[in-house]
Amino acid sequence: MASSLIGRQLVLSLQKNMWLGAAGCRYVSKAAPQTLVECEYDGPSMKTSVPGPRSQELTKQLGEIQNVGAINFFCNYEESRGNYLVDVDGNRMLDIYTQISSIPIGYNHPALLKLMTNPNNLSTLVNRPALGILPPENFPDKITESLISVAPSGMTRVQTMACGSCSNENAYKAMFIWYRNKERGHNTPSEEDLNTCMINKSPGCPDLSILSFMGGFHGRTMGTLATTHSKAIHKLDVPSFDWPIAPFPTLQYPLEEFTRENEQEEARCLEEVEDLIVKWRQKGRPVAGIVIEPIQAEGGDNHASANFFKGLRNIASKHGCAFHVDEVQTGGGTTGKFWAHEHWGMDDPADIVSFSKKLLTGGYYHKYELQADKPYRIFNTWMGDPTKNLILAEVLNVIRREHLLQEVNRSGKVLLNGLYDLQARYPGVLSRARGQGTFCAIDVCSDETRNSILLKARDKGILLGGCGDRSIRFRPALVFKEHHVHMFLNIFNDVLAQIK
Amino acid sequence: MASSLIGRQLVLSLQKNMWLGAAGCRYVSKAAPQTLVECEYDGPSMKTSVPGPRSQELTKQLGEIQNVGAINFFCNYEESRGNYLVDVDGNRMLDIYTQISSIPIGYNHPALLKLMTNPNNLSTLVNRPALGILPPENFPDKITESLISVAPSGMTRVQTMACGSCSNENAYKAMFIWYRNKERGHNTPSEEDLNTCMINKSPGCPDLSILSFMGGFHGRTMGTLATTHSKAIHKLDVPSFDWPIAPFPTLQYPLEEFTRENEQEEARCLEEVEDLIVKWRQKGRPVAGIVIEPIQAEGGDNHASANFFKGLRNIASKHGCAFHVDEVQTGGGTTGKFWAHEHWGMDDPADIVSFSKKLLTGGYYHKYELQADKPYRIFNTWMGDPTKNLILAEVLNVIRREHLLQEVNRSGKVLLNGLYDLQARYPGVLSRARGQGTFCAIDVCSDETRNSILLKARDKGILLGGCGDRSIRFRPALVFKEHHVHMFLNIFNDVLAQIK
Repeated sequence: MASSLIGRQLVLSLQKNMWLGAAGCRYVSKAAPQTLVECEYDGPSMKTSVPGPRSQELTKQLGEIQNVGAINFFCNYEESRGNYLVDVDGNRMLDIYTQISSIPIGYNHPALLKLMTNPNNLSTLVNRPALGILPPENFPDKITESLISVAPSGMTRVQTMACGSCSNENAYKAMFIWYRNKERGHNTPSEEDLNTCMINKSPGCPDLSILSFMGGFHGRTMGTLATTHSKAIHKLDVPSFDWPIAPFPTLQYPLEEFTRENEQEEARCLEEVEDLIVKWRQKGRPVAGIVIEPIQAEGGDNHASANFFKGLRNIASKHGCAFHVDEVQTGGGTTGKFWAHEHWGMDDPADIVSFSKKLLTGGYYHKYELQADKPYRIFNTWMGDPTKNLILAEVLNVIRREHLLQEVNRSGKVLLNGLYDLQARYPGVLSRARGQGTFCAIDVCSDETRNSILLKARDKGILLGGCGDRSIRFRPALVFKEHHVHMFLNIFNDVLAQIK
Repeated sequence: MASSLIGRQLVLSLQKNMWLGAAGCRYVSKAAPQTLVECEYDGPSMKTSVPGPRSQELTKQLGEIQNVGAINFFCNYEESRGNYLVDVDGNRMLDIYTQISSIPIGYNHPALLKLMTNPNNLSTLVNRPALGILPPENFPDKITESLISVAPSGMTRVQTMACGSCSNENAYKAMFIWYRNKERGHNTPSEEDLNTCMINKSPGCPDLSILSFMGGFHGRTMGTLATTHSKAIHKLDVPSFDWPIAPFPTLQYPLEEFTRENEQEEARCLEEVEDLIVKWRQKGRPVAGIVIEPIQAEGGDNHASANFFKGLRNIASKHGCAFHVDEVQTGGGTTGKFWAHEHWGMDDPADIVSFSKKLLTGGYYHKYELQADKPYRIFNTWMGDPTKNLILAEVLNVIRREHLLQEVNRSGKVLLNGLYDLQARYPGVLSRARGQGTFCAIDVCSDETRNSILLKARDKGILLGGCGDRSIRFRPALVFKEHHVHMFLNIFNDVLAQIK
């Protein structure tokens, strides 16, 4: 039952030590802050097929309340540790999907358990403020020591939001507001603007657009969904906007063998972007902003070169469009740099950078010019959640203290080399191994084979996710070490040997 | 700073008592669970003008990071108790706005402090799952004992979301999906549907619409914003949809003197709704759903009769539109019933009911027919937050244990009668006192006078909010008792005497 190794240990620990130096750990030490590895399990351990009987029972129970078609299994988060997710049937899996890439430093990290039992943080947990009007005293400090401490180049301003979709929705709104004020030449709307916007009509609600890319994923609310083009199931039956959609480069692998072809492909896509900007301006729906992921994640882990992104950023500037880099999935260190766009090596990479998932709170950074000119334009009741800022600040401490970006680079190299080896060994099954840091992927010969591999791996205690039509995406937490990579590669090899 | 009566007391309490029977209270007792009143302050206490020097300093600091135009002041949530919000300059105010109506049982309720220090809940605080795929073991039980235990009539299914806007966005998507499957006569999209939706075009992204009401507020993301029509500042410069907007009845007060006029007004609005549904069908943008608040809150606390809502619900059924009641602000007990729509006295009041704010988690209830036919259609990474479900379950326990709905009815009567008295005493200043439970409002002769009253009341330790063009809205927590009402009315009378 959802019980409670942690619970019991915590009580014991409390009795010994008010400050919980090692709550949740199996090996208690009062020395320096523990790293996660000291508390972790030593490997997967499977007791039943997955979903096991208890998961099936709970799925049936939840099925009375919700659609459960996407439920994989139910989890025992109390017993999960580091890279290991434990399910309610006692199966322990090496988690390389991490709640759709949203767990930064593994399960039950001792530093987070300690943080959440610090009585000074109790008020934050029970009193959720309306951050836009009545923030808590420590809000500026918390934001400074968390989000501002990892702000992308050129950005000193940040707005928190509750989730990824809301982050992008509000980033789009910020771009529209900025664009219209630029068109006006001032910040004072006309009477006509004010009157027409109340009834959804132009010029108050202008015919502006956001340019997005085929294969991109930016969220599921109606504004962001109009820029999402990864899978039909996300978009079907929902009204949308007539906004331009550019092709994202389809690179050929291995990259070093297709240098010229890939350069041409990227040039073709950039040309198409410019054509679309001109065309949409001509048809009265100017492009206020361009939105793109540094690596298209949901759409199939599609990469492009730093040169492509530099070219795109220049096109945006040339045509007066804001440039929005969506780092909801790529942000937080998993590519080996804190932000994936840092790999482009630009001083002025973007006007807006949005985030969520591993950052635990949603939100977006922006340049000063992209700040709405008046209050209540970018606004809602909660505007994020201070509890998440609190956890994020500690997660960033752990990332620094445990040198996790270095670890990601180290593990990422071993992982990618391992994938190269496997695709050489199973050429009929695997292809196009690719990645940055541990943000890796590989293609499988068919959708069915991909899905079969995912299930077989799970049966052997490896939890993976798919993306695109026939890719497997690797999304471990930042605490995924070299020895976890080797463990994964060994088991994955066994799975592939069965498939072959 | 931001320190910590609670923190210090908690440590003391922990040393005495592992289970924190009364953490955060000034009077410790090991007897039955404490109610909030035992811990509360005995009245407002103002030390500086508001915002005081410390608030101004923090506003300047935050101004380097965000637009701070909407910041009222900074708060010391640690020292806040029950109905009293304490700011960082030591001012203590009776809070009748409660974080834009989002605090259900006051600040630092002992039951919530106890909950958050229970070590069994620690894992929930540090491991946020992707609820749609890997829910925790206790998820079905927590949902059952929280949201399902207060489900609106006719609804046994609920989907959680992170905020109010996302709740309504997803409710709209559910209505579109339902409507299109009804049009198709089956759940299998055509190849053309699948191909066109990827490029934002009909029929895959169909030209469907949601009918909303002038003065309504349903959120700020682009789908919900197309149905929001309360203030221009919310909508200006953001592209929108060509969706029908009906008039909301403008009732004349006192209601008993204008029975016939108000009936006619409501009949006129209903007629207009039917006309719009026919007209939008004819122009190829059929109305898939109607969305309405039981009391238009942000738009000025506009009420309509139960008969109006019954008529509207019948029109929706007659024309095959889903009927979505947005209880984001009205839900949670503040009108004297848990859901405001319960005042209509209908067995089948709605197809969808959305919530957020006082429910702590966003989400929506729906009938079985409104459940998306396939997984991943209504989906996102987090789909809510189990931490909030945990707190909500305990909030509902407190509401039951402390009979808070009865209290709301009692306080609400005293409040509304007090407002009637005041408008009789200040006829040139106040008019149209109205309300249900403590969800009350009153109009002021002008925008400027309204804003001046709000500031003067704040200087005397009463925190209120405005709504509409010139209304004051009263949004106390459910723990706002008769003696709080009297305290408010006395101080408010002093303010009005100054204004007159």
